[in-house]
This record gives sequence, C-alpha cells and structure tokens, in this order.
Amino acid sequence: MCECGSAVRENEDKMGFTRSRFLGGKPSKAPLLLPFLLTVLLVGSQGDGGAMDNGATERIAEESHRQDSAYLLIFIMLLTLTILTIWLFKHRRFRFLHETGLAMIYGLLVGVILRFGIHAPQSMSDVILSCAANGSPATLLVNVSGRFYEYTLKGEVGQGKGHQVQDDEMLRKVTFDPEVFFNILLPPIIFHAGYSLKRRHFFRNIGSILAYAFIGTVISCFVIGLIMYGFVSFMKVVGQLGGDFYFTDCLFFGAIVSATDPVTVLAIFNELKVDVDLYALLFGESVLNDAVAIVLSSSIVAYQPAGDNSHSFEAMAMLKSFGVFLGVFSGSFALGVVTGVVTALVTKFTKLRDFPLLETALFFLMSWSTFLLAEACGFTGVVAVLFCGITQAHYTYNNLSPDSQDRTKQLFELLNFLAENFIFSYMGLTLFSFQSHVFNPLFIVGAFVAVFLGRAANIYPLSFLLNLGRKNKIGYNFQHVMMFAGLRGAMTFALSIRDTATYARQMMFSTTLLIVFFTVWICGGGTTPMLSFMSIPVGVDSDQDNANSGALDGSQRRSTKHESAWPFRIWYNFDHNYLKPLLTHSGPPLTATLPACCGPLARCLTSPQAYENEGQLHDDDSDFILNDASVSSMYADVTVSTDASGSRTVNPKHSSTARAGGGVGSFDEGLDHELSVAEHEVAIRGTRLVLPMDDPVEAPTTVTLPPPPSPPRSEPHRHRL
Amino acid sequence: MCECGSAVRENEDKMGFTRSRFLGGKPSKAPLLLPFLLTVLLVGSQGDGGAMDNGATERIAEESHRQDSAYLLIFIMLLTLTILTIWLFKHRRFRFLHETGLAMIYGLLVGVILRFGIHAPQSMSDVILSCAANGSPATLLVNVSGRFYEYTLKGEVGQGKGHQVQDDEMLRKVTFDPEVFFNILLPPIIFHAGYSLKRRHFFRNIGSILAYAFIGTVISCFVIGLIMYGFVSFMKVVGQLGGDFYFTDCLFFGAIVSATDPVTVLAIFNELKVDVDLYALLFGESVLNDAVAIVLSSSIVAYQPAGDNSHSFEAMAMLKSFGVFLGVFSGSFALGVVTGVVTALVTKFTKLRDFPLLETALFFLMSWSTFLLAEACGFTGVVAVLFCGITQAHYTYNNLSPDSQDRTKQLFELLNFLAENFIFSYMGLTLFSFQSHVFNPLFIVGAFVAVFLGRAANIYPLSFLLNLGRKNKIGYNFQHVMMFAGLRGAMTFALSIRDTATYARQMMFSTTLLIVFFTVWICGGGTTPMLSFMSIPVGVDSDQDNANSGALDGSQRRSTKHESAWPFRIWYNFDHNYLKPLLTHSGPPLTATLPACCGPLARCLTSPQAYENEGQLHDDDSDFILNDASVSSMYADVTVSTDASGSRTVNPKHSSTARAGGGVGSFDEGLDHELSVAEHEVAIRGTRLVLPMDDPVEAPTTVTLPPPPSPPRSEPHRHRL
Repeated sequence: MCECGSAVRENEDKMGFTRSRFLGGKPSKAPLLLPFLLTVLLVGSQGDGGAMDNGATERIAEESHRQDSAYLLIFIMLLTLTILTIWLFKHRRFRFLHETGLAMIYGLLVGVILRFGIHAPQSMSDVILSCAANGSPATLLVNVSGRFYEYTLKGEVGQGKGHQVQDDEMLRKVTFDPEVFFNILLPPIIFHAGYSLKRRHFFRNIGSILAYAFIGTVISCFVIGLIMYGFVSFMKVVGQLGGDFYFTDCLFFGAIVSATDPVTVLAIFNELKVDVDLYALLFGESVLNDAVAIVLSSSIVAYQPAGDNSHSFEAMAMLKSFGVFLGVFSGSFALGVVTGVVTALVTKFTKLRDFPLLETALFFLMSWSTFLLAEACGFTGVVAVLFCGITQAHYTYNNLSPDSQDRTKQLFELLNFLAENFIFSYMGLTLFSFQSHVFNPLFIVGAFVAVFLGRAANIYPLSFLLNLGRKNKIGYNFQHVMMFAGLRGAMTFALSIRDTATYARQMMFSTTLLIVFFTVWICGGGTTPMLSFMSIPVGVDSDQDNANSGALDGSQRRSTKHESAWPFRIWYNFDHNYLKPLLTHSGPPLTATLPACCGPLARCLTSPQAYENEGQLHDDDSDFILNDASVSSMYADVTVSTDASGSRTVNPKHSSTARAGGGVGSFDEGLDHELSVAEHEVAIRGTRLVLPMDDPVEAPTTVTLPPPPSPPRSEPHRHRL
Repeated sequence: MCECGSAVRENEDKMGFTRSRFLGGKPSKAPLLLPFLLTVLLVGSQGDGGAMDNGATERIAEESHRQDSAYLLIFIMLLTLTILTIWLFKHRRFRFLHETGLAMIYGLLVGVILRFGIHAPQSMSDVILSCAANGSPATLLVNVSGRFYEYTLKGEVGQGKGHQVQDDEMLRKVTFDPEVFFNILLPPIIFHAGYSLKRRHFFRNIGSILAYAFIGTVISCFVIGLIMYGFVSFMKVVGQLGGDFYFTDCLFFGAIVSATDPVTVLAIFNELKVDVDLYALLFGESVLNDAVAIVLSSSIVAYQPAGDNSHSFEAMAMLKSFGVFLGVFSGSFALGVVTGVVTALVTKFTKLRDFPLLETALFFLMSWSTFLLAEACGFTGVVAVLFCGITQAHYTYNNLSPDSQDRTKQLFELLNFLAENFIFSYMGLTLFSFQSHVFNPLFIVGAFVAVFLGRAANIYPLSFLLNLGRKNKIGYNFQHVMMFAGLRGAMTFALSIRDTATYARQMMFSTTLLIVFFTVWICGGGTTPMLSFMSIPVGVDSDQDNANSGALDGSQRRSTKHESAWPFRIWYNFDHNYLKPLLTHSGPPLTATLPACCGPLARCLTSPQAYENEGQLHDDDSDFILNDASVSSMYADVTVSTDASGSRTVNPKHSSTARAGGGVGSFDEGLDHELSVAEHEVAIRGTRLVLPMDDPVEAPTTVTLPPPPSPPRSEPHRHRL
C-alpha cells in the first residue's frame, strides 16, 4: 500500500551552470550500475498505523516550521545587532571596521556558539526509513496509504557518512541552500550596484573600466589558476593533497576569487570624498567583474574535454567554453537592457507617475522579472539584473516621479543593505557551521600568493597600457590603491559555496572564506591609512570638482567628450539623439533627429516636453551650459531644477552647480548630482516656488544666447520665473 | 548500495494549527497498519549508472529551477498587467472595480489558459521510482551510492490518484505551498493594517470595534456554523454529500468566512472621504477580526473530543478550545506589543535617527522578528505582527526620523500592495488550477445564506446594544453599509487553502473562493451606489471635521475623552503619563509623573525633549489646544509643525488645523494627520523657515493663556518665531 514514486525530469539544458559535467569524472569510481534494490531499515519506534500517520506528519511539519522560524530568528537578531553596532561605529566615527566586517565577526561568534555551545537533543530522529533510488530526482512523490506527498530536493548532505547525518541536524538547519544566495540575496545587491552607478564618471572612464573588468579579470583568473596549478602539483608531489584537483579546478578557483567587492573601501571613499575618478574606476571595475567572474566560472565548468576523465587541454572544449562565455554574457546583457528599455517605455507612455506606489511596484516587478526571465532562458540572472539596473538608472529613472525616484532608491538601498549584511554574517557563521571544511595550509598559502599576484597582474600591466592612451593618467598611487582595494566579498563567497561536493571544491571554499576574511578585515580596515600613505586627495566634492564655475564646467565636459575614444563618442551621440528622446522625456525631439521619412512615427514617439529642447540640436553644448549655469547662479541660495513634468526639486546651497535645466551632459550631471546629494534633497509637490528674476545684472556677459530664446529642458513654469 | 533514509521528528507541539487532530477520524478508514513493504516500480528508461547520476541530478535541479523561474515570471507578469490596468482605471476614475477584483480577473484568465490552453510535454517523467514510507516525514534523506540528498516535504499532491499526478505537473507547479501565504504574504498585509491604523478614530471607537471584532466574529462563526450544520444534515438526508462533514467542520467554515477584508470598500471610502467614524469602525473591525478568526479557527481545530471519531459535543474539549483561544491570542498579543516596545526603546535611546537607512532596516527586522518569534514559540505570527504594527505606529513611529517615517510607511505600503494583489490574482488562478475542487450547489447556496445571516447577526444586534451606551449613535444607514461591506478576502482565502486534504475541506475551499469572488466583485463594486443610496455623507475631511476651529476641536476632543468608557480612560491616562514619556520623546517627563522615590530612574529614562512639555501636566487640554490653534492660525497659508527633534514638517493650506504643537490628543491627531495627508506633505531638512510673528492682531480674544508661557510640545526654534 505504501509507495514512493519519483518523477525524474531529464530535459537537457544548454547554457546553465552545469557543475555536474565538470565533475563527471568523479562518480565513475562509484558502482557503475546502481542496484535497484530496496531495503527496509526501520530503526526506532514504528508508527502506530493510519490514525497516527496524519497527526505525526502534521506535528513534524509544524515542529520543522517552528525550528526554521527559530533559526531564521537567529539571523535576524544577528543583523539587528550588527545594525546597532554599525550605528555605534558611525556615531563614534570608527573607520577601521566596516559594517560587513562587523557582520562577519558577529557571524563568527554565533557560529562558535552553535558549534560548541549548544547541543540539540537527538530525540528528534525517531524513525529512520530507507529505500532505494537511482539518481536524486528533483521531486519525489511519496505514497502513503493513497496520499501523495511531494518532496523537493534540498541538496546533498554529508558525504558517505549517513550515520553522522543526524548528529549535525542543527548545524545543517542553519545552513542555507546555496542557491538562496544566487536567487534571493545577490540580485538586489547587484541591481543596486547598477542602479546607483555614478554614470557620468563611469562613462568618462568606460574604456579603462571595461579593460580592468574584462581583460583584467581574465588575466587574473588565468594567473591565479596557473599559480594554483603549480602549488597543487607540488602538493601532490609532497603528498599533501587528499583528493583530486584538476587544472580546471584551479581555473575555477581563479575565476571565483577574481570577483572583487570593494564595498568596504568604497564606503570609506564615499565618506572621505576621495577622487572621483579613482572611485569610478574601482566601483565600475568591481561591478562589472562580478558579472565577468560569474559567467567565466560557469564557462570553465562547461569546459569538458571529450574524454571524460582526461581533464587535459583540448581546443574544441576551449572554444566551446569561449562560446558559452560569449553566449551567456551577451544573452544576459541583452535581456537586462531589453527589460530596462521596456520599463522606460512603459513609464514614459503611461501616466503612472501620478501614482508613485503603482510606479514603484511596476519598477520593482519589472526589475525582478529580468532576473526570472534570464534564469528561465538559461542565462545568468545576476548579470541581467546588473545591466537592467544600469539601464533603469540611465533611462527609466528620468521618467519616474520624484517620489518614485526616492522610493526606488531607498527600497533598493535597503534591500542591498540587508542582503549584504546577511551574506557577510552568514560567511562568519559558515566558518564554524559548515561541516566539510578542508583547511590545507599549503593550499591556503598558495592561494594568498596567487590572489596577490593575480591582482597585480591585472592592475599594473593594464594601467601601463591604459596610460598610453589616457590623457588623464592613472597615477602610481591610484594603481597601488586599486591593487590594495581588491577585496573579495559576496560574489566570491556565493560562487564558492554553490558547489561543495568534491574535495577540491571544499578546499576551495574553506580557502575562499579565509581570503574574504583577510581582505575585508585587513585591507578594508587599512584603507584610511593607505589613502594617507599614498597621499590620495580626500575631501573632493564629486560635483564641485567639475562644476566650480559654469565656464570650467563647460570646458571640462567638452574635454570629457573629446577625451573618450571614438566608439564611445558614436554611442554617446546615438544615445543622446535617438535613445534618450525615445525612452525618456528629455533630449531633442525625434522629429528633428530622425530622417524625414520617419516623421509620423517620430511624432508619435516624442514626448511633448521634448519639443522644448529643440534648441539643443545646435550642438554647442558649452554655450548652453554656460547660459544655464549663469541662470542657475541667479537663484542665490536655492537652486530650483524643473523637470519635464512640472515637479520641482529644491536644492539649497548648491548655487554653483549647473543643475537648473541644462544641455546634454548637464542632465546627466544633474542626475548624478541628485543621486549623490540625495541626502540633502527633498521634493516639494503641490507648492509653487515663485522667485523674482529682478536681478539681471548678474547674468554673465560671456553668454551668447542661442537663436531660440527658450532655455533647454525648460517648461512653461520656468518662463514665469 | 542505494538507500533512502528518512529522519522523522516527532516533537509534540501544544498550540499550533493542528489540522491533523481535527481530521483524526478520517484516516481510520485507511488500513490501520501500514505495510512496511517496499516495491520496485521502475517505469521508462532506467538510468545509465553512476556517471549519469550526477549529471542527471544537476540537470534536473537546473531544469526545475528554470521552470520555477518561468512560473514565477507568470505571476510577476500578472501583477505587472494588474498594475497597468489599475493605473488605467484610476486614471479614468472607474470605481466599479477595485484593483483586487481586477487582479482576480487576470488570475482567472491565466488559470483558464494554463488549464485548457497549454499542454506541457509529458516527456519529463522518465523514471518513476517507488519505495515505501510510513507517514510522511518533513525531511527525507535519499542515499544514492554513498551521497545523501535531502528532500523536504512540499505537501500533499492529488489524493488517491497516483497515476494522474504526472498529468497535472504544470498546474501543480503553479500551486504554491499554502504556508507561503501565512509566512510570506499575510504578515506584511496585516502589519501594514496595524501600522496605518488611524489611531485617533480607532481609539475613539475602540469599544464598538472590540465588540464587533470579538463578540461579533464569534457570533458570526457560530451562526454560520449552525446554519451550515443544518444544510449539511439536509444534504446528508437527500444524499447530496459525497463525504464526511462534521459539526466542527461547520464551525471551522464559520470561523474562516467570518474574517472580513473590506480593502476594496475602504479604498473607495478613502477616495470619497466617507465619514471617519464609519471608516474607523469598518477598518478596526476588519483588522481585528482577522486576528480573531485565525485564532478561532485554530482553536476549533484543537477541539478534539476524547473519542477520536465521535465529533460530538464535549465540555472538556470545549474548555480546552477556549483555553487555546485565550492562550494563543494573549500570547501573540503580548509578543507583538513587547517587540514593538523594544523597538521604541531602541530607537529612543540610540541616535539611530541620524542614519535613516539603519533605522529603517532595524525597524523592518524587529517587525519581522515578531513574526518569527511568535511562530517559534507556537503562537500565531500574523496576530503578533498586527499588534506589533499598532505598537510601532503608536510609539516607535514618533521616535523615527522624518525620513525613516516616510521610508517605513512607503516600504510597508509597497509590500502590502504587492502581497495583496498577488493573493487576489492567485485566488483567480486557483479557481482553475486547483485540482480537487468540490462544487456542491446546495452547499454553496447554504453558505451564501449563512454568510449573509452570520454578518447580519453580527452587525444589527451588536449595533443595537452598542447604541444603548454610545452618545454618537451608529445610524441604520451605517449599519447597512457595515453589513454590505463585509467582504471576504485574503485571510479567508489563506485559511481555507491551508488544508485541502479532506472532502469537507475541499468543498469549503471551493465555496470560499466563490464567496470571495462574489463579495469582492458585487459588494465591492456596489459600494459607491450603496453609499449614495444610504445617503452617507461623503467628502468629509477626516481632519477638518473635528478641527474646523480650535474651539470646536478642543470641545470635541474633550467629548471624545469623556465619551469613552472608564477602562479606556484609565488606559489613556496611563499611556499618556507613563508609556509615552517612557517610550517616546513626547509627553510629560517621567520625573513629574512618577512618584518621587523613582527619581533617578525617571531622570534616566526621560528624554531631554520631554522636559519642555512639562506644561502639559496642568491637565487643561482644551485651553492649550485653543491657544495652539490660534498660534497656528497666524501662519496664514503655511503651517509649520515642529516635532521634538528639530525637524519640521511643512503643510501648506491647512491653516485651520490645530497641528502646530498641541496637547495630548493633538499629538495623536498630528500624527493621524501626517498619515492621512502624507501625499501632500513633505519634509524639509536643512532649511529653516523663519516666519515673522508681527501680526498679533489675529490672535483670538477667547484665548486664556496658561500660566507657563511656553506652548506645549514646543522646542527652542519655536520661540524664535
């Protein structure tokens, strides 16, 4: 009467993270043909029949739920404690330990307590049932007297020690499914990184950032992989290796520890107002190399030479890996951008902005759907989410109502904060709660050396090459700081905990944990001394440094534009002339930029506000910016910036910035500015600030007013001023 | 080599929702002793051994993940579509269909498509393995060639139709674990209800609200239960009943359909500005009766007469149920309040308010931990969260920085919105995707009649009794609207889907779905006509109606206080004199209200701002309020309200309200006001609004200035005005 049926679904997938193929060589040691033999192994008290069955199931489910609640509560309490301590640190201006480092310490403490302090009663395991299964299907249907219960695969437990499994019940309970990191915790962190990107500085250094993130990460991955292969070979010779460790394992290790996460360093940079270019380089690199590392690691896993056990080099497999890398990366990129663009179009062509709640909800759902869509298509959700975030910030953000702009920023800031601190405190916890640690001193030393050299091989040669082309050179002190700031964080951890099935992976995981601890505590804590040692200028206002005066601002922007390489300039013009007008309310109207044949379509797609920007077509940005800067300087203490929809942003004591309206770059700058000074800003709705414009004497004489008398990006209310 | 071990945990639990005991009589029909016999039933292609095993597992897990992503994407798209349509409806001012009704319609459509439109390929189920299990443990460990895979209980699938299980793979995939509603979706909804409670109007009607929520819900539950028992008995006689249906089932049905959810009606009330007392009565009742219904239903489940199968009335079991009700309710209440108080203390005594992000995160985590704590202790998390929300709104909210006040409100508003629409669209979906519907016409008719009569038995007799004691009578038109507005929603659905194992529960679930559809569409849609038919006054400003002038306001507040019963007055004074000063920055200092012996403690616990409120001790509120109202009326168009911490709230065009400072109730009112007019409000930080006070002529002559010249709740800046 009692059956246990398992429905195994074996659809082939092409792109995903197939660690199985990579590990394909291992299980051949196990019996090749699984015996389809089912044995009964009933230990302990046997159930008292049907009546008990239901009740027991219920009670077990409830008990399990209560335990889960209690364990989740531990984490919540941990986070709460972290928050309170962070406040204390911020309050007292301690900079030697960042919140993430703190979260790790608390995690460590709780891990120690759980491991050594608490001994859970073992009465929980009353009945041990055993039956056979070939393979571990994703879903298991257990038939108990005509009722079917569905079980889902949670993951692998201890390896080959079935009798020990019960002993570690509690530690296993506080261990999350690694996929939680990829599906729940990483997406908001990565989206936030994309959404909070300071785009102007990012785009100014786009070439260098791409070089560091793509070429640099690949270099770092291979350098670390080769060094580790050397170490591992040496360990094999001296007999220090307790299991298999292939070259692909080494490369995989190289890929996962190449993802830098300088969240600690950047928080300090932000606080100390370190040079914006350095900030942009580090931030941009770390954001993009997370994406590169995740795709790189899955490509390495997909690298599977024809002979299952050879693990030797093979050109075809290499090419296949490269294909996987390109496919997954470009697919994820495209999906992220497309969802961002769709959101921009929806927010542009509906009047959702009248209902900030709806708008925020839509924004949130669309951003989340990017992740799901990418995962459903077999691409990498995290990468898609990153590019979606950048697209949302670049286009959609402009269409949102000021209220929604605040809400979305604050929402993702909160999600990012919670997810980040959760991951770091979990990291601390796993040092003690994870049950298959393999700490190999030789491997650890080798890994630290390799990580150091890998980072050096990324930064110094690339900086040298980049400096050949850059006008604004990357100084040696900047290079040293970038070298030093290569912390490893959430992404490295998530990638390494994803698969801890084999000896090699367990050793990698344990070593990675130590690398994260070391870099976050030592490198993160040493940032402030490092900055002063390297005499990096601090206290630079990211906006004032190129907006001290209108004239300087204009020339700087012009130089920014000319500084960039031609592909970027082409993109810049395309974005400005076609994409921005199409996707947002800003920019020149499409009717002016598109050829005449597209007239009706262009009229249909252009927002009414865009027509007022027509003057911008005369591509003499600097004049406009001068003009605008001077206009804004007349507002004395309060700068009123009017966006396309009639809502206003009041920004006290920023008279010197060119925020009020403005040309191409100025819009970007205004946005960056909004992102950066959001703390001091506030939106006023429903009031109308009417400022007298009775002091025309202050208008600078250098301004050459353009033919159309209306200032760019203005709207009817502006004229009333 | 191949074993499948299951660790069954059977710790007894005391309080929780034990449907199993209630259903205890059923499984006795099944074979009493489960044969511990394991059979092999391998259908389809058998795995090709060890090497395949790993790869297959991986690919299955990935495939499963991709499918899950795709199905989740369906829901996200559904919500996105709902949002866009809501916007369209709001934009065009359609009021006949609320967003929840809309979400249900979309859910229905998708359900139809999934059910009849799409036929998933059946190639997925290649291998069917069968083994035996006695009982369905929460965790199952499957041993495959030395590796242990953990499986967790997902729930029961189809009943007794093992061969059909594969056919409904897709429909089963879009079916969520019912516990998702209780653990993820309901908490934010219920917390939001508590947090957004308009406390002044709520407390003014607290007696009536408690009567409707507690006595009324119990009456409704028993009336519905008895009527249904009559119907069911009749059905048994005419042979229309296909399974068992006990009296406890009837009572359980009564409990779950007694939870009203007038979210639709209240949205319209809010928009039309319906009378605040009616709003408060309906809102308060629906918020509290959710809590009552959930605890009531679990108590009924706990009602288990000594003889397992008798289902007859028994005094001891009845008493036990009553004990469970009291225990769970008071335990959940206490936990919720305690967490709220702890949060208030933490936010009061730290300076977390300098860092809104940390503050918001702490607030969120503490509120979440209430839920987990209650669940871990065996209480009802949803109820705890409700009272936590009310406590947070009453105390913690005052301690938060203005930025955090906005952030927390917006965060929970968003979570509430998403969760609510998700539940309602899921409701529509389950009408077609749920696979064990039992639609019994007679039962459905009976249920509609019973629900109608149950609601009537709640509202009319109680209103009559309450009117005997109330000065502000509840008119017949109000009673009719309350009767009409008894929609069933998220809580009813969640309670009914929680257990659909037996015939009785399946019939209840199907009937409940229809009741929800009917009430949301018909009653929700008919609210506007109903209001005009009942000649309920609309367009009443919730603040203006008692704040038209200072004098009226003062007298009304006094009457509010005197109107209330003595237990409430005692509580009011205790709250004002001890709790508010202890937990927030407002109120009179504890040094003045506590006896002298507690001096040092009181000094330690009183915040510096409270000393400035000392004047309030002279308990002549009306004078103060008059004074304040007149002061505020001098600000002409802009009312500046200064809270205790030096941050200001500018509220244009509300000159007639008594917001600027104020006495006891005024603070409450100010807060209520802030909650209600938040749309038009905005916080300015960093600027100082200096208004000239050079027009003393306007000060009303009726004001008798109190002995201490400083107005209550003022702070240094105020005097500079």
